[in-house]
Amino acid sequence: MMTNACYAVIFISRLRADAEGYAETARRMMDLVREQPGFLGMESWRDETGRGVTISWWESEEAIARWRQHPRHRQAMRRGREEWYESFRVQICRVEREGCGS
Amino acid sequence: MMTNACYAVIFISRLRADAEGYAETARRMMDLVREQPGFLGMESWRDETGRGVTISWWESEEAIARWRQHPRHRQAMRRGREEWYESFRVQICRVEREGCGS
Repeated sequence: MMTNACYAVIFISRLRADAEGYAETARRMMDLVREQPGFLGMESWRDETGRGVTISWWESEEAIARWRQHPRHRQAMRRGREEWYESFRVQICRVEREGCGS
Repeated sequence: MMTNACYAVIFISRLRADAEGYAETARRMMDLVREQPGFLGMESWRDETGRGVTISWWESEEAIARWRQHPRHRQAMRRGREEWYESFRVQICRVEREGCGS
């Protein structure tokens, strides 16, 4: 647990039934994100209907912005928008109370 | 979607295997929270291991504080701490980017 402020990214999505290639890319992105400066932790859930959430924690908004600009992440996001997600939403949040990390 | 600032409460928990009475109370709390002033929406997930997350969205920190003080909610939280949850953490977050609600 850190006591400093941190940021949480809430990513809520609904996968298409035919999201071919999604699982492999998701695994690769999980490995890649752990190497990013300012990354603090991540937790994910997905139910049997395809509705899922990933919460990731970051030291700063700058760290979040850098990850959004990472070429391999950008490519994965593009495939997500075009091929895998029926819908999604992203919220960037400042954690006001309690600790950060996972 | 609202364009004003809002707050998200991220509640991550692990249920005990023998969380008797939890499901019924959780249903009652879901009904009750929807009636609270300033409540904007909620989404929940729980996996087969008992690890779960509930994200709720609120108009203000005051609305969150009022819900934390609600007598029936306080009673449910006490049972949660004492009987149902192996562990839990709560983060109160200010949504900086993107919309609120669910």
